[in-house]
Amino acid sequence: MNEPITSRQNARIKEAAKLRDARQRKKQRRFLIDGVREIGRALDAGIEVDEAFVCPTLCSADEARALTGRFAPETIYEVTPDVFEKLCFGDRTEGIVVAASTPQRTLEQLQLPEHPLVAVLVGLEKPGNVGAILRTADGAGVDAVIIADGTTDLFNPNTVRASIGTVFSPNIATATTDEALTQLRAWQLPIVAARPQAKQLYTEFDYRSGAAIALGSEADGLARTWQQPDIQGVRLRMKGIADSLNVSVTAGILFYEAQRQRATEY
Amino acid sequence: MNEPITSRQNARIKEAAKLRDARQRKKQRRFLIDGVREIGRALDAGIEVDEAFVCPTLCSADEARALTGRFAPETIYEVTPDVFEKLCFGDRTEGIVVAASTPQRTLEQLQLPEHPLVAVLVGLEKPGNVGAILRTADGAGVDAVIIADGTTDLFNPNTVRASIGTVFSPNIATATTDEALTQLRAWQLPIVAARPQAKQLYTEFDYRSGAAIALGSEADGLARTWQQPDIQGVRLRMKGIADSLNVSVTAGILFYEAQRQRATEY
Repeated sequence: MNEPITSRQNARIKEAAKLRDARQRKKQRRFLIDGVREIGRALDAGIEVDEAFVCPTLCSADEARALTGRFAPETIYEVTPDVFEKLCFGDRTEGIVVAASTPQRTLEQLQLPEHPLVAVLVGLEKPGNVGAILRTADGAGVDAVIIADGTTDLFNPNTVRASIGTVFSPNIATATTDEALTQLRAWQLPIVAARPQAKQLYTEFDYRSGAAIALGSEADGLARTWQQPDIQGVRLRMKGIADSLNVSVTAGILFYEAQRQRATEY
Repeated sequence: MNEPITSRQNARIKEAAKLRDARQRKKQRRFLIDGVREIGRALDAGIEVDEAFVCPTLCSADEARALTGRFAPETIYEVTPDVFEKLCFGDRTEGIVVAASTPQRTLEQLQLPEHPLVAVLVGLEKPGNVGAILRTADGAGVDAVIIADGTTDLFNPNTVRASIGTVFSPNIATATTDEALTQLRAWQLPIVAARPQAKQLYTEFDYRSGAAIALGSEADGLARTWQQPDIQGVRLRMKGIADSLNVSVTAGILFYEAQRQRATEY
């Protein structure tokens, strides 16, 4: 194990703390992960940890100690609570933050079963919404998620947190809208697009032979690119005064309707 | 109309600005509403506006000007951008903030149709989650929402914002868990409780003859009070690594499954 770090001015700490900034994540090709559960899920998914900053004073939970055992000893740096505070995100006080290498997440890497269920998130602006939808996609059994024209990086700390670590799944890819559409057509997947003005209800579509479900940003919805003859618009029935739902709620309703139709085992 | 207000130290401004604080909302029995859409929905729902602070410099949109016409002239106070900034919430810059009297929202006031769909939110901690669920309940056609043992006040600014104004519906009530349960039993409504450990799937329950759907806090779920012989636990099928969804997503999936089963018109 390395020498404990006691100074907030330590060069390694300063470099890691910069990773709260998106430009630095891009430049260093690394990102930070907070939280015992999230770090565990990253390791399970094969994410490579460069540096693990552990604060023994804060890291008292059994789970946190067990996690420490999963890091290569040469990557572990003990830090003081003061140094830890410089690294951690929001109110996370579990005593472990790691810097990890940003993995490539391309369309070519996606591995799909027969008749897959794919989600496409188009131009979403809030990383918390992306994370929440990844969590829901994991629960619903969505086989792959494509993040098209995302306005934040995939491993934004708010995405990691809202996803509770499901963001580390290898079956998530980033792409442009054009690349995503080309790929969906190459897969010959029926495409449905959530659109408040669509004629068809989401419950009237048959998801059983596979489908790609596209969802647009809350502010703008899906662009005209997603209004094409081979794309089926679907809508929710809105019975009240509001004309749309939060995009992460819409995603949950669509994914679970697809799951309900496709269920073969309990 | 009143004299324009140009000083942040104006007594009326200082009293209104205090309403960002929950204790002051309780003490003054008033709350603030930001946003043209939200204020319009409050007026539609019969909420009484005490004071409307309008910043003509910011209030340029037609919609905002039309809204001003709905206030009693003696309640309107023109303010400068500097004064407005002291009153408004977050990045809202639509140029209108109103102080409104907090309405009573009791169980006795709820008016239900035959075979109603009722939602019960138990001990939810995040006002943003409460607001998002109210928005979804409105869309799904939930007839009434009971907020049981809520830890924030109903008209918290984050609730108002996330609800996009659906929080003003008169068919929302606050109560204790005991009062809520007593009322549901008096209505002889079947009660379903969302619980990850439940045996029955949410799709296996029949919502067509009316139901109350109870949802607990994200941290703790539903307390033992909701594990009783006359309460049916239901769960979502979780196919991935995470064992639960965000409570507002769970709410959306349950409400819309109930809507799907109960649909008679399109």
